[in-house]
Amino acid sequence: MIKKVRTVLVGLGNVNQGLLKILIDKEKEIATKHDLQFIIVGVIDSSGMAVNEKGFGYEELVNLKFNKGKVNEITGFIPKPTEEIAHCVEADLLIDASPVNLTPKNPGTQLIKNALAKGWAIVFANKAPLVLAFNDLCKLAKEHKTKILYSATVCGGLPVINVLKRDLKLISSISLQGIFNATSNFVLEELEKGGNMDEAIREAQRIGAAESDPTLDISGQDTANKLYLIMKSFADFDGLIKDIEMEGIEKVTPEAIKEAEQNNSKIKLVASAYHKGSWHLSVKPTVIAKDSFLGSCNGWEMGLEVKTDLYESISMKNYEADPKGTSAAVLRDMIDMCSQLGKQATLVKA
Amino acid sequence: MIKKVRTVLVGLGNVNQGLLKILIDKEKEIATKHDLQFIIVGVIDSSGMAVNEKGFGYEELVNLKFNKGKVNEITGFIPKPTEEIAHCVEADLLIDASPVNLTPKNPGTQLIKNALAKGWAIVFANKAPLVLAFNDLCKLAKEHKTKILYSATVCGGLPVINVLKRDLKLISSISLQGIFNATSNFVLEELEKGGNMDEAIREAQRIGAAESDPTLDISGQDTANKLYLIMKSFADFDGLIKDIEMEGIEKVTPEAIKEAEQNNSKIKLVASAYHKGSWHLSVKPTVIAKDSFLGSCNGWEMGLEVKTDLYESISMKNYEADPKGTSAAVLRDMIDMCSQLGKQATLVKA
Repeated sequence: MIKKVRTVLVGLGNVNQGLLKILIDKEKEIATKHDLQFIIVGVIDSSGMAVNEKGFGYEELVNLKFNKGKVNEITGFIPKPTEEIAHCVEADLLIDASPVNLTPKNPGTQLIKNALAKGWAIVFANKAPLVLAFNDLCKLAKEHKTKILYSATVCGGLPVINVLKRDLKLISSISLQGIFNATSNFVLEELEKGGNMDEAIREAQRIGAAESDPTLDISGQDTANKLYLIMKSFADFDGLIKDIEMEGIEKVTPEAIKEAEQNNSKIKLVASAYHKGSWHLSVKPTVIAKDSFLGSCNGWEMGLEVKTDLYESISMKNYEADPKGTSAAVLRDMIDMCSQLGKQATLVKA
Repeated sequence: MIKKVRTVLVGLGNVNQGLLKILIDKEKEIATKHDLQFIIVGVIDSSGMAVNEKGFGYEELVNLKFNKGKVNEITGFIPKPTEEIAHCVEADLLIDASPVNLTPKNPGTQLIKNALAKGWAIVFANKAPLVLAFNDLCKLAKEHKTKILYSATVCGGLPVINVLKRDLKLISSISLQGIFNATSNFVLEELEKGGNMDEAIREAQRIGAAESDPTLDISGQDTANKLYLIMKSFADFDGLIKDIEMEGIEKVTPEAIKEAEQNNSKIKLVASAYHKGSWHLSVKPTVIAKDSFLGSCNGWEMGLEVKTDLYESISMKNYEADPKGTSAAVLRDMIDMCSQLGKQATLVKA
């Protein structure tokens, strides 16, 4: 029997557009392999929210954006603040793929809190609410017997969070280094080739990989956000994002890159975490050997190297020039969520 | 409340010795974090089997092997064929870490079948029963409402099987290339340095990384076994291990290695799978670029590169000079198994 999952999409940018396209392609497979059907009962973009208890068509929403339409133009539009969506429609699952907005009082976090209070499960591609209120959201989810998943927030389709949380069980010590922002990695590579920072950033935005505000990529903030979420996924880290020492790539000069090259090295924006008495967390341009694992993460690649007491060294990287991998990671979390919560019968009521 | 899991260890070699040492180190953590305690109610080595309903001490079993003792010397020894163990003690979980024996009628497979028929869950580090009877074992597990897990059979602690099964959901196309045998990778590197094949194999056995029969490593059979288990973890592959074209590293010459080096390449024992009309599977010495991902898997590293329709390219590798990572992977599966089956209340009866 196919379970209908009433789903709300927050954000209709690259990630949720990609998700809708995968849902169109794989609708049958999702039904036959996982006994699931996702019914889009609500959508939100910057213009507002619309609801439809019977479900918007996937194609309808793809076409809306393809034609540069907005949510406030479609049937079902409700002229209320979007954080009220949980009071305007019944749903089981919310996908937050809105642009990262780190303003402490941004309405996006309140929207998530309202949804959790209704027992909705949340899948995040947007890091902002997690960075602003990780502990609060976890507590709310627990109180309302629901869950949050966020494997798409770090390195797109590369299952960094999943591997760390699920596969490296019982480790007592860990240190890690990673490249978590493909845009700044691409920009640094363009600089290596003699290119110009502004042009490289525009190219990254053109293909949809850069955050809508490129400052987040270049300043190291996006990398710091990801490092923070990785760290929060371990039980014994209770620090704050401001505990991460942060320096962006703005001041990396062509001369510094040339000097590194002469030493068979590269400059990469590296996130690092190690424990010595307490956690030492940093994001900064770092000179690393060309033939090291992170030195071999080129252009649109992101990667992570983890050393633990039990598993020695594990490294993983992905190549993702297209946000499709992130959309696929959202769908992976949606399916995992249904299987995790389905057993407790708090999800999938329809 | 701590659940006591009655556990049988098959094999007391490097992997289960490593497991016992981790159990000693992390006993408290396993209890507090996972509410579990593993009680070793049965052990099997080449000399026979012994049972103890109250549980053998972890240290007792480590010391037994440290002192070169055998199971037929300890209290609880039962002079019966070891495949009868499921009739000699009540248990919830069996860990098969015995040496790989691919003789079709080897008693190890019957032992597993008997255990599944009693509803025991099985965690494998030994690939042989899976390679010989994958479909039968899955069917038996289903019939008796239990499960098998085998993440430790491929690349030790690197969660290759877990990532492919759990994280790359809904992919429609996949091709992969990997280095799955650290011993042959180490041997090839020694040859690059001008070393000798026999000496390199002896060194690999000394540190406990080589299979007890090094032919399995060198001939490509171990790599083929791993490729087969990876392929069986996808729903649409129903081929046989003999469908894998196989060539070992026995005939790799110093001249061929030198020639590759002159072209900025290396010779690696590469497993490959791609689908074109049907699956094309092979294990053979392959010339690959030095600066490619697999070209950078050196010595004791193993790695995998996967290309799919949804996730573009994902690569992962590990460095594991010690079998501890494999032992930790067994323990990861033991804990996952308890959480998966615990919910169905077929496991953990005590």
